[in-house]
Amino acid sequence: MRIEAKLETLGLVLPEPMQVPPGLRLPFAWVRVRGNRAYVSGHIALNPDGSVAEPLGKVGAEVSAKEGYQSARRVALAHLASLKRALGDLDRITAWLRVFAMVNVAPGFNQTPLVTNGYSDLILELYGPEVGTHARSSIGMMIPLNAPVNCEAEVEIDG
Amino acid sequence: MRIEAKLETLGLVLPEPMQVPPGLRLPFAWVRVRGNRAYVSGHIALNPDGSVAEPLGKVGAEVSAKEGYQSARRVALAHLASLKRALGDLDRITAWLRVFAMVNVAPGFNQTPLVTNGYSDLILELYGPEVGTHARSSIGMMIPLNAPVNCEAEVEIDG
Amino acid sequence: MRIEAKLETLGLVLPEPMQVPPGLRLPFAWVRVRGNRAYVSGHIALNPDGSVAEPLGKVGAEVSAKEGYQSARRVALAHLASLKRALGDLDRITAWLRVFAMVNVAPGFNQTPLVTNGYSDLILELYGPEVGTHARSSIGMMIPLNAPVNCEAEVEIDG
Repeated sequence: MRIEAKLETLGLVLPEPMQVPPGLRLPFAWVRVRGNRAYVSGHIALNPDGSVAEPLGKVGAEVSAKEGYQSARRVALAHLASLKRALGDLDRITAWLRVFAMVNVAPGFNQTPLVTNGYSDLILELYGPEVGTHARSSIGMMIPLNAPVNCEAEVEIDG
Repeated sequence: MRIEAKLETLGLVLPEPMQVPPGLRLPFAWVRVRGNRAYVSGHIALNPDGSVAEPLGKVGAEVSAKEGYQSARRVALAHLASLKRALGDLDRITAWLRVFAMVNVAPGFNQTPLVTNGYSDLILELYGPEVGTHARSSIGMMIPLNAPVNCEAEVEIDG
Repeated sequence: MRIEAKLETLGLVLPEPMQVPPGLRLPFAWVRVRGNRAYVSGHIALNPDGSVAEPLGKVGAEVSAKEGYQSARRVALAHLASLKRALGDLDRITAWLRVFAMVNVAPGFNQTPLVTNGYSDLILELYGPEVGTHARSSIGMMIPLNAPVNCEAEVEIDG
C-alpha cells in the first residue's frame, strides 16, 4: 500500500466512478486487464464524488494552460481510481508504459505538453522514475463533453 | 466458427478488402499479427464490395449521430473482415483489448461516444462480455477521405 | 549493424536528441523499453543537430503534402535515433508493430496518408517487408509546436 500511503500524504483523494451524464451510455471497460497488461480507457477530470470537474472548455480560450495542468493531474487521479478498482492494489503496477493525452485546444494553442505535464508529474511523484517513466504523446483535438483533457494509458502489472 | 455463424444469423456481411481510391498508396498492413497480439490499423466504413461507404462528412453537420453510429458499426465489420483474412478464423480472438475511435466532427459536436457505441455494441453482441469488453477512447478530429469515423484496435489472439 | 550500414548507404544521418525549446519541460521518456516491447513517444521532425526542422505549419496551407512527406520521413529518422540510444543497436528490432501518425492539417485537407507514407516508406526500405510491416493510423489534428507531423510507434525487440 505504498502508493496509497503516498496519496494520503499528499492529501489527494481518488474519485468515485464517473457519474455518467444522462443519455450517455458507455459500453466499455474503464480498465481492461489481460495478462500483465492493463489498458486504461480515456478518462476526463472528475471531482471526488465522480461528477465531471470544472472548468470545461478549450485550453487557450476558456481554460488557461495552468488550469489545464490541474485538469490533467485530476485525469491521472481518475486513472489511478479506476486502476485501483480493477487491480485491487496500486502497488501491482510494475511499469507505466505509454500515455496518450488528448487536449481540447482553441485554434492557435499548441503548448499541449505543458498541460499533459500535470499527468506525468503526478505519476512520477508517486511511482518514482524507474516505474513511473512512460512514453507519451500529446495532441490537440475535440474531446467528449468539452472537457479540457482526456488521457488514455497502458501499464504493466505484476499479473 | 461461432462468430461467423452469429454474423450470418444477424444478416451481417463482412466487406471485401478496401478498394483504395486512385492515387492513394497505403504501404502498411491492415492487421499486424505478432505473438499473441493483432494490431488493427485505422479502417473506415466500407460497403460489402469494399468501396467506401456513404455518407461521408462531419458528424454534427452533414452526418447525424445516428448515421455515425451505423458508420462505426460498419467499421467494426471492416475490422472483423481484415482480422478474418489475417487470422483465418475469428474465433481465434480470445480478448478484445483496446479500441481507439477517431470521429470526424463538426465544430461544437462533442458526443463522440454515441457514435463509437456502434462499434462497441457489435463487438459485445458477437463476442459477449468476457471476450468482447475493451478499453476505449473516442475523440473528434479530421479523418482521411472525410469519412465520419475511423477506428483502430488491438486484440489478443490464441497464437 | 545492418540497419546503420543501410542508413549510411542512403546518406541518412540520425539526428541528435531534440533541443527542447526554452520553457518547455518534457517529463517523459522518448522511448520506454519493457520486456520485448519499445514504446516510442510522439516525435516531430528534427535537423541533424536536434533542432526543430523547418517547415512548420499546417499541411494543406503553409506546408505542401510533399513537404509533409519529407517531414514524416524525418520523424522516422528521429524515432530511429531515439531507439538507437535506448536499445544500443537498431538491429535489435525484430518487428515494427504499430505506427500512429498525427498530421497538423489545414481545414479541408484529408490526404493524411500521403504524408505518413514518408514514415512507412523509410521503415520498409530499411527493415524490409517482414520486420518493417506495421499497422498504422493517420489522422489530422493540432500538433505541439505547430509541426506538420508527429508520430508515435511501438516495436517488438529481441529483449
